[in-house]
Amino acid sequence: MSFKPTDYLPYDFANRRHIGPSPAEMADMLKVVGAADLGALIDDTLPAAIRQKEPLEFEKPRSERELLYHMRQVGKRNTVLTSLIGQGFHGTVTPPAIQRNILENPAWYTAYTPYQPEISQGRLEALLNYQTMVSDLTGLEIANASLLDEATAAAEAMTMAQRVAKSKATAFFVDENCHPQNIAVIQTRAAPLGIEVIVGAPEALEADRVFGAIFQYPGTCGTLTDFTAQMDALHDAKAIGIVIADPLALCLLKEPGAMGADIAVGSTQRFGVPLGYGGPHAAYMACRDAFKRAMPGRLVGVSIDSHGNRAYRLSLQTREQHIRREKATSNVCTAQALLAVMASFYAVFHGPEGLKAIAQRIHRKTVRLARGLTEAGFTVEQTHFFDTITVDVGPLQAAVMKSAVDEGINLRAVGRTRIGITLDEVTRPATIEAVWRAFGITRKDEGIAPGYALPDALVRQTPYLTHGVFHMNRAETEMMRYMRRLADRDLALDRAMIPLGSCTMKLNSAAEMMPLSWPEFSDMHPFVPMEQAAGYAHIVQDLSEKLCQVTGYDGMSMQPNSGAQGEYAGLLTIAAWHRAQGQGHRNICLIPMNAHGTNPASAQMVGWTVVPVESSDNGDIDLDDFRAKAKLHAANLAGCMITYPSTHGVFEETVIEVCKITHDYGGQVYIDGANMNAMVGLSRPGDLGGDVSHLNLHKTFAIPHGGGGPGMGPIGVKAHLVPYLPGHPMTGGTEGPVSGSPYGSASILTISWAYCLMMGGEGLTQATRVAILNANYIAKRLEGAYKILYKGPTGRVAHECIIDVRPFADSAGVTVEDIAKRLIDCGFHAPTMSWPVAGTLMVEPTESETKAELDRFCDAMLAIRDEIRAIEEGRIDPANNPLKNAPHTVEDLVGDWDRPYTREQGCFPPGAFRVDKYWPPVNRVDNAWGDRHLVCTCPPMSDYAEAAE
Amino acid sequence: MSFKPTDYLPYDFANRRHIGPSPAEMADMLKVVGAADLGALIDDTLPAAIRQKEPLEFEKPRSERELLYHMRQVGKRNTVLTSLIGQGFHGTVTPPAIQRNILENPAWYTAYTPYQPEISQGRLEALLNYQTMVSDLTGLEIANASLLDEATAAAEAMTMAQRVAKSKATAFFVDENCHPQNIAVIQTRAAPLGIEVIVGAPEALEADRVFGAIFQYPGTCGTLTDFTAQMDALHDAKAIGIVIADPLALCLLKEPGAMGADIAVGSTQRFGVPLGYGGPHAAYMACRDAFKRAMPGRLVGVSIDSHGNRAYRLSLQTREQHIRREKATSNVCTAQALLAVMASFYAVFHGPEGLKAIAQRIHRKTVRLARGLTEAGFTVEQTHFFDTITVDVGPLQAAVMKSAVDEGINLRAVGRTRIGITLDEVTRPATIEAVWRAFGITRKDEGIAPGYALPDALVRQTPYLTHGVFHMNRAETEMMRYMRRLADRDLALDRAMIPLGSCTMKLNSAAEMMPLSWPEFSDMHPFVPMEQAAGYAHIVQDLSEKLCQVTGYDGMSMQPNSGAQGEYAGLLTIAAWHRAQGQGHRNICLIPMNAHGTNPASAQMVGWTVVPVESSDNGDIDLDDFRAKAKLHAANLAGCMITYPSTHGVFEETVIEVCKITHDYGGQVYIDGANMNAMVGLSRPGDLGGDVSHLNLHKTFAIPHGGGGPGMGPIGVKAHLVPYLPGHPMTGGTEGPVSGSPYGSASILTISWAYCLMMGGEGLTQATRVAILNANYIAKRLEGAYKILYKGPTGRVAHECIIDVRPFADSAGVTVEDIAKRLIDCGFHAPTMSWPVAGTLMVEPTESETKAELDRFCDAMLAIRDEIRAIEEGRIDPANNPLKNAPHTVEDLVGDWDRPYTREQGCFPPGAFRVDKYWPPVNRVDNAWGDRHLVCTCPPMSDYAEAAE
Repeated sequence: MSFKPTDYLPYDFANRRHIGPSPAEMADMLKVVGAADLGALIDDTLPAAIRQKEPLEFEKPRSERELLYHMRQVGKRNTVLTSLIGQGFHGTVTPPAIQRNILENPAWYTAYTPYQPEISQGRLEALLNYQTMVSDLTGLEIANASLLDEATAAAEAMTMAQRVAKSKATAFFVDENCHPQNIAVIQTRAAPLGIEVIVGAPEALEADRVFGAIFQYPGTCGTLTDFTAQMDALHDAKAIGIVIADPLALCLLKEPGAMGADIAVGSTQRFGVPLGYGGPHAAYMACRDAFKRAMPGRLVGVSIDSHGNRAYRLSLQTREQHIRREKATSNVCTAQALLAVMASFYAVFHGPEGLKAIAQRIHRKTVRLARGLTEAGFTVEQTHFFDTITVDVGPLQAAVMKSAVDEGINLRAVGRTRIGITLDEVTRPATIEAVWRAFGITRKDEGIAPGYALPDALVRQTPYLTHGVFHMNRAETEMMRYMRRLADRDLALDRAMIPLGSCTMKLNSAAEMMPLSWPEFSDMHPFVPMEQAAGYAHIVQDLSEKLCQVTGYDGMSMQPNSGAQGEYAGLLTIAAWHRAQGQGHRNICLIPMNAHGTNPASAQMVGWTVVPVESSDNGDIDLDDFRAKAKLHAANLAGCMITYPSTHGVFEETVIEVCKITHDYGGQVYIDGANMNAMVGLSRPGDLGGDVSHLNLHKTFAIPHGGGGPGMGPIGVKAHLVPYLPGHPMTGGTEGPVSGSPYGSASILTISWAYCLMMGGEGLTQATRVAILNANYIAKRLEGAYKILYKGPTGRVAHECIIDVRPFADSAGVTVEDIAKRLIDCGFHAPTMSWPVAGTLMVEPTESETKAELDRFCDAMLAIRDEIRAIEEGRIDPANNPLKNAPHTVEDLVGDWDRPYTREQGCFPPGAFRVDKYWPPVNRVDNAWGDRHLVCTCPPMSDYAEAAE
Repeated sequence: MSFKPTDYLPYDFANRRHIGPSPAEMADMLKVVGAADLGALIDDTLPAAIRQKEPLEFEKPRSERELLYHMRQVGKRNTVLTSLIGQGFHGTVTPPAIQRNILENPAWYTAYTPYQPEISQGRLEALLNYQTMVSDLTGLEIANASLLDEATAAAEAMTMAQRVAKSKATAFFVDENCHPQNIAVIQTRAAPLGIEVIVGAPEALEADRVFGAIFQYPGTCGTLTDFTAQMDALHDAKAIGIVIADPLALCLLKEPGAMGADIAVGSTQRFGVPLGYGGPHAAYMACRDAFKRAMPGRLVGVSIDSHGNRAYRLSLQTREQHIRREKATSNVCTAQALLAVMASFYAVFHGPEGLKAIAQRIHRKTVRLARGLTEAGFTVEQTHFFDTITVDVGPLQAAVMKSAVDEGINLRAVGRTRIGITLDEVTRPATIEAVWRAFGITRKDEGIAPGYALPDALVRQTPYLTHGVFHMNRAETEMMRYMRRLADRDLALDRAMIPLGSCTMKLNSAAEMMPLSWPEFSDMHPFVPMEQAAGYAHIVQDLSEKLCQVTGYDGMSMQPNSGAQGEYAGLLTIAAWHRAQGQGHRNICLIPMNAHGTNPASAQMVGWTVVPVESSDNGDIDLDDFRAKAKLHAANLAGCMITYPSTHGVFEETVIEVCKITHDYGGQVYIDGANMNAMVGLSRPGDLGGDVSHLNLHKTFAIPHGGGGPGMGPIGVKAHLVPYLPGHPMTGGTEGPVSGSPYGSASILTISWAYCLMMGGEGLTQATRVAILNANYIAKRLEGAYKILYKGPTGRVAHECIIDVRPFADSAGVTVEDIAKRLIDCGFHAPTMSWPVAGTLMVEPTESETKAELDRFCDAMLAIRDEIRAIEEGRIDPANNPLKNAPHTVEDLVGDWDRPYTREQGCFPPGAFRVDKYWPPVNRVDNAWGDRHLVCTCPPMSDYAEAAE
């Protein structure tokens, strides 16, 4: 033996790749924070009482290669047939250029929600294209970007209708032709709100009995109905009319706006977004201009920057939870931005002619399919249809279904005797022939004269996608460059730390992202027979077990596809349990003042009354107030919602007491999992006394933020709550569903599962420790220059820290926004602004950032403090200084420079890269102007011409 | 039927996506060029005599989706086993982050060779890292980046040795332990150069008989030899010692430099580059400092820009063909830049500790494998080895090989009785157990004490990869950002047109790029049994047939992996045919003065004498001179090499006559395929009289340039030459091989094949037409402002045009370089400079550019003409103006501005995007400084520290 083997762990292992600081860097950082070692720091930070007893034990962590090999094997356990099931989910062709340059490009998928418009102009433009597309296709003035899925969008539309309707009725009508999961999610949502849901045929609508009605178009079995009469009746009754419309069908069919609909919702999945066993996909919502302030979700608008140049921004978020808090009535937070971007590029790629051609081809194929069936003696139920037909085969339903599976095709069983068939963009002649064979018909898809089965009255008469962006040259070269240009305007994790408190912007590794694109995972319909989805079942099962071990719970539901959705699902579960105990009257929910804004909104959604609890001076829950209010409401206490560690980033020692009080007074404890990145492997909400928690897999478990979604918010519950977890019409369960798909955005579970498999239990725990180290390192480095709020009793913060910049308002006239925008000059996305404490910045570095990047950020923050000091000391104009003028653009450099600091100082503050500097495309965006001049679709080309002059 | 079906072809079809101008844009452009329609333009441009008679007919073009589906089916016909064949090709793990962010990222793969250093700093840095890595690992001072493959690098090393050796011997010694394909390619190369190749055991070297000797390390069967004694003997004989070394083995083993080697070559494939059925992979070459001016290939060096800042550039290209032309002795042009970049990032990712750990793991596994065999009674031939062992199994060779295949493993048959086994990074315990089973041994890979089988004297004593870049934090976040930063410094096709004459920078579509990454294509060893590669065989066969149809030839060889390699292979084929006709003495090659520089270099390589032919004033071949010289050399005329359309971008009418003259005097005609993008579907070299042509699949058939490789240069030949095409030791044939792999860079054939399948015959033809339209559009728009050289008799150019800027040297002191650098300010890569005519720019837009992009380029060129006029008219300082100061950087904007034009004029000339402007990271690079201060490895960190101050 001639040399010593290195005991070096190969870098192939994800946990070293995932964690930012190297061992040597960590040693240096521990010196700075004044801890003997990482263990000592954690002991300082986490109270012993809340520490978990056993280490997290998964199987041996896998290398990237082992992971991908294993994923291939698990993928093979999914049997991917051609699914003609329809029901809102369709085969579609993702243009390879979109797959490569958007879905698989970290510049797009690692971006954050575009709350900082100056560094988000690219994705804001893509989302504005999306809104324009939706507005055009639906024939309604305003569209948002975007909602979680079609079913939840339908439920949102219902509650929106209730808000805006002048009718005082409390019932809501649902077309029986809606997809079953849409009806079920609406029913789930309606029940706790006291809304009576009337399901019936459109003709049976009694408009004066309802505040609104919703119709599916085309109907779930393929029928095409003109709802103009229903809309008229509803309007006469001062009620609201809603249409759930397939956007591809709208390329041929009369649009909801032309029928008089007030609101339209639907899924844009079939615009190039893979099926993914149910998600993620973007749902849309559009409405009349009059209702725009009642619309949930995000609305991209057009404003100007401080130089008067056009700039995009999020506007009119009047209903978003972080604004309205206790008064919120929607908890929409995560949207499906990445998927909306993909759908919008699909429309840009194809343009109106292309979309129309795709729709026509599908329709013509459906006509051929129907004729083949008819000529063979079958009766197709629909005379008119777009892409879906239904055939009654009597007792042979099972035989035909089985025969189809043998042909590699999934059909839809409707009732006990009928079969539904829905064609799509990927249907080929061989598919049609295989369907015929399943019906016992042997013939070629040839010789059938082209035909149409759209009713004349429903043929679309209006143009759509008229804006220039949908008419640009669609050569791939041009498309590729357009995607690149938009990507380059934005700042995402692939260029810099995004130190957003409470948002956990960690590495989304390439290996974790890969399986998502494999056909075994991407091409599966959510409603295939269970036995075809054995691979997915294994992932759901194994990931659930691992998350139970992480959280100390006994069961998980993967259905909620956002954190807010998880909260809502968790509270529904608690409510169902209370009812089962004969305690259905319990409706009081204690929520600390500093809770996430989604908490009160979610409580409202289950019909509970929010009772706020005071915070003590150090930001902790005021235990006395909590106890007093629990006691006061003992008879009706449904539960409490708390966040751990607290939203102030501190491990409160009192958490166990809070849980105990709640239980003592008959309530259940909801622990918000937003800050789980400070707990994994070290502490378990289930051990602290929690009954339910949601996990933000897109925060803690490596799903990328995608510029504002997708997300996944599964919930873990204690054993007594397991029977009350959400059910689903396709998979059973006693409770109603909260999402359109049984496992939410199932395909991105592969990311979190891959993360767990590569990190292993110890790797996940180490990630938590380093996340805490990184936050404490920043806190220590900035100490002195800034006041760090809300440390724990030992002077430590958890995984994030709050920097108090309020004093500078008086001392220098500098606001939190000035600092946030100045950080853009330094090459950083701003930390979370004014939350949970107004006028502060909350920083969460995560474990993935290296010491060098943390230092770059600290250097920038310290330099900004010096700039503030210059104002304080009168050395620079308080109205004309680098902070007030931030962010600086290239335009500033080019133009005249009449400022009391140099160009160099303006554009290259400490922290900014020199050669590799990120340049924001616009100066500071004027929010007020945008709200005064609301434009939420692409501006006309004439505007561009003017701007160019 | 209630609406009219659109007759619109869905945009899914590649030929519309691939071709830049839309039909409406084409109509506008035809007006500008003054042609009634596209057909009329082509009739104007291509002489009727050279038009092909029949249209190109392939099967129906496939949509992207159909293509990918079809590719999956063809991929399944490849059976991917675990190959332990070794022989220079190894399983390796491509880090997913490298796969996603380099190999699959158009910012990297669509870049051009970094001849314009200002827009290539990112890839130049990556390639400098590569050179540093190679230099460190081999222990030699200078390394290049990079060569085509190990076998050709070995042949290059031989000819380099002959040039630099003081010995006058004409023989060259080749270690019999070299891989068979290395020996064979050396022999192919040696024969026409009159070099006697002596193959023998290293101990048998007679140093005074040779000018150089080459040794494989480790040997092909696994032996480890210290070649120090051989090197000493060679040096005593004033001869050159060369080692072919596995770079991963060098992480554990004494480096060639320490043995006294003068030159080292080898493949860096196993540094994360997929097997790909033989390529593309980057080979390296390193040498002593004294020999650097004799080294072939590209050498990245460190220089400064006009502000004195560090800047990278290509340096010392003294031997590259485009400089030396007739005197060239290497025809290296395409390298393997993209693969070298991948290998360099692999080293950056793993660092020296990581590479060492990988090497150690492989070695330890090999020791366990060997012990298992020994303990079962087999005799392992080697006492000492790294990753390869050999076992003599007597008559059971076939049985063991078959048994291994049944276990999913390919072993190597050595001779008739021996079996070779080579382990690699992906070998797992299960693999070792399967090998044992193939030998009839049932045991677990457990309980074998770790052992080492390296000879003490060969254990490496020196450090490597000591530079900081190999010691940066290797968290994936940091790596991802490093890759992004480097990518952003460069300008590639994903941001702008690269209008390089003779380089055909067209779209490389995402769909075409996808199959390359699939395991069915990427994980296949080049020497697997034919029946396992049925998918590849089908692709080679079908693509060959299509290319035969395109060119009018009767047979193709896919072996040459660059255009220059194709020329060389084609001339070898001609020479072999001459020999077979008893005309082996023919050695005169007529080459026009304006030929590609590779042509004379290739002719030299086959031992021919180049006789230049004059051009007439219009740039055409001087027919009289051609005839006279053909006649003069009639007895010895081997052939001619011409380019069609000419390198001046004109369809010469005389081509048929040139071919006829050559044939009349007993020669063969080589038609260079560099300009095939002007011919596909319209004219066929085989019809014009060509006997051989190569095709640059990376120019004409959509393989991306990769920043300077990979490429593929297959050759087509007439029937009489088919028997003389290159053979290969692994696949047979009467002639020697020119590449290490039978089908060259086989995996990228998937790209060209996909291109053909999606475009179809008519699509390819239309692409040619539009390429010609685009070139004529530019020529027309620039006419008047610039003189366009060398039009055809009807005033048309072919697919490129030459802009004469020579007059401005006198009128304004403006050089071609000034204009090229000013175009960077406008957001363009410069056209080809000073070729084929010194002082001109040659522009080739290709069919993929839209009218808008062509207009942007023309606007930029016209604005530059105005700037020149300002100098001419004395309105601006001839030494201080936007042209002389170009390119402008952000640093220029930040600093003081003492120029007689505004910052705006300097940085935002017409053509430049405003928000999306590309900023070069450095000002104009000083070439002379770089050559005076040659540094070709990463500068020490102290330099960076100084620069930062």
